[in-house]
Amino acid sequence: MIGWRDIYNVFQAMLPLYFSLSLGYGSVRWWRIFTPEQCVAINKLVAYFTLPFFTLNFALHVDPFSMNFRFIAADAISKLLILFVIAVWVKFRGEELGGSCYCWSITTFSLSTLTNALVVGVPVVDAMYGKWSEELVVQLSVVQAIVWLTVLLFLLELRKAWSGLAEGGGDRMEQGRRKEEEEGSLRPSYRELMKVVWLKLALNPNTYASIVGITWAFIANRWHFDMPFIIEGSVLIMSKAGAGMAMFSMGLFMAQQEKIIACGPGLTVFALLLRFVAGPVAMAIGSIAVGLHGDILRVALIQAAIPQSITSFIFAREYGLHAEVLSTAVIFGMLVALPILVAYYVILGFLN
Amino acid sequence: MIGWRDIYNVFQAMLPLYFSLSLGYGSVRWWRIFTPEQCVAINKLVAYFTLPFFTLNFALHVDPFSMNFRFIAADAISKLLILFVIAVWVKFRGEELGGSCYCWSITTFSLSTLTNALVVGVPVVDAMYGKWSEELVVQLSVVQAIVWLTVLLFLLELRKAWSGLAEGGGDRMEQGRRKEEEEGSLRPSYRELMKVVWLKLALNPNTYASIVGITWAFIANRWHFDMPFIIEGSVLIMSKAGAGMAMFSMGLFMAQQEKIIACGPGLTVFALLLRFVAGPVAMAIGSIAVGLHGDILRVALIQAAIPQSITSFIFAREYGLHAEVLSTAVIFGMLVALPILVAYYVILGFLN
Repeated sequence: MIGWRDIYNVFQAMLPLYFSLSLGYGSVRWWRIFTPEQCVAINKLVAYFTLPFFTLNFALHVDPFSMNFRFIAADAISKLLILFVIAVWVKFRGEELGGSCYCWSITTFSLSTLTNALVVGVPVVDAMYGKWSEELVVQLSVVQAIVWLTVLLFLLELRKAWSGLAEGGGDRMEQGRRKEEEEGSLRPSYRELMKVVWLKLALNPNTYASIVGITWAFIANRWHFDMPFIIEGSVLIMSKAGAGMAMFSMGLFMAQQEKIIACGPGLTVFALLLRFVAGPVAMAIGSIAVGLHGDILRVALIQAAIPQSITSFIFAREYGLHAEVLSTAVIFGMLVALPILVAYYVILGFLN
Repeated sequence: MIGWRDIYNVFQAMLPLYFSLSLGYGSVRWWRIFTPEQCVAINKLVAYFTLPFFTLNFALHVDPFSMNFRFIAADAISKLLILFVIAVWVKFRGEELGGSCYCWSITTFSLSTLTNALVVGVPVVDAMYGKWSEELVVQLSVVQAIVWLTVLLFLLELRKAWSGLAEGGGDRMEQGRRKEEEEGSLRPSYRELMKVVWLKLALNPNTYASIVGITWAFIANRWHFDMPFIIEGSVLIMSKAGAGMAMFSMGLFMAQQEKIIACGPGLTVFALLLRFVAGPVAMAIGSIAVGLHGDILRVALIQAAIPQSITSFIFAREYGLHAEVLSTAVIFGMLVALPILVAYYVILGFLN
């Protein structure tokens, strides 16, 4: 049974996040401290420095040899299940919907699978189930950064190449790829697509941080290295700014939107259902399939109901695909997350 | 005796500060991530948000009823001694130097008394003498923010009013004050000067944070209140960004200067002697006067040899008074601080 004290703990973990968010929002809307150009600077500071170090600091301390592989398998099954459902839907409704069908598949995948695990997930599960549960969320966040964001980027690049083809090889396609496709050769064009995807990821400082972090974690745990305290301290001094600055910058972003709900009520409900219902339901199926139970099962479900990943919005904006839906999922999702997560927490408390 | 291990600890505490500094410097000079306009945004972020919360978090946890008043007295004596020496110098050399004499008095006071106590001082004394010594530095930093920065601002405002008078009541003087001075009334003009000084300080978010913090600390310790964890957490999430972002923004500032030594070698040596020799010598006299000894004496001397306060540079720039000297003291002082502090540490280790 979850008592008031437990619920207070969750508030205690989440309200500071909303506080930073409000400072960011207020600094633009109420106090007019930052111009739009200056907001760009702070977003850059977060994207290139504080957030990657925040991610790096978590990834460095993962022990890849004692990961909970059953937990990761449950997560993978849930995501594959979602991909399968989407594929079935495309098969049966694809004809009548045409091109927009593929686009909505990508957005549906993004909304139901990608969470803001480190900034929001870690403090929430820590407050609910204790320090041990943090590590599970960190493990999934590394997998998300390396595997699932790659899948998302791959789908987005594929769509870009397709729409280029549909337009008869329009401007957006690269010269090399066009030539290859004219030759009817699919294999090299796939390879080039993957090259673009990997390049994008390698240029994304956050993915970079995940890969560097987990690589170090592998080496250090395999040969029992310790990181020199000076490097540890250097990563730490920047990473400590991570959560506060990330929420502050989300607040700046909120303040620059004309309205908090950018995409109309129908799509908002759709986005929130995918994020806060479809994601956890798929995770429940995955967890039961691999036999998770007790608090690990609870952590699995809670971490699937964390608000939308900011990176997924950034990609949506970059590829011009339903950016307003993703923006709503990130902003409005964050605002409604506290009651939803507390409700899940209380309900899961009754679970045996 | 100080061993290698102790010196390594000091490196460990200070190198992360230099790391953040380099990231800030590199982001402008090497990677060209930020334009000058964008640097302004990050400086604002630090000045209005992360640094004030950093200061607030320290001030909130001071216990005003168990402050080390002898330590604070030693600090006050050292500062009054410096003011006295300056006054004597002005008395004997004032005639021949004229107006620039008063200006140099202000800069001398600033250079020999005001340190970057919280960002640099706290981790340094912590690494050298342990957690207990942090509190002493925090106490002095609160006194510095409330008393000594007020003195500096008062002197700067006085100079501004004077130079206004000397120019026959130039543009820079406010209408009200000019009228009063024409009437030959000194008292109201002093009162108005103080009003300007207090207003400036009240608009300085860092002073604001010190005053709010210490006021809360008084109330909380007097009536044994505890701060609600949610407020504690909200302050903490922002304050954790403090040290990293402050050094990052100093790095941006360094990168925007044409040269690191802006004021010529003679003045650089003058500034460094005041900061790293005159300050600690005055503190030694003050400490001996009140009978400090042992590790408390060592902490007193080390904290007097911390690099120059950034706020003192900001004021110098605002009042157009030797800004290039203060800029050199802040930047070059930070670069040479590590060997100087280690040298002090080793020498003080031989002290009985």
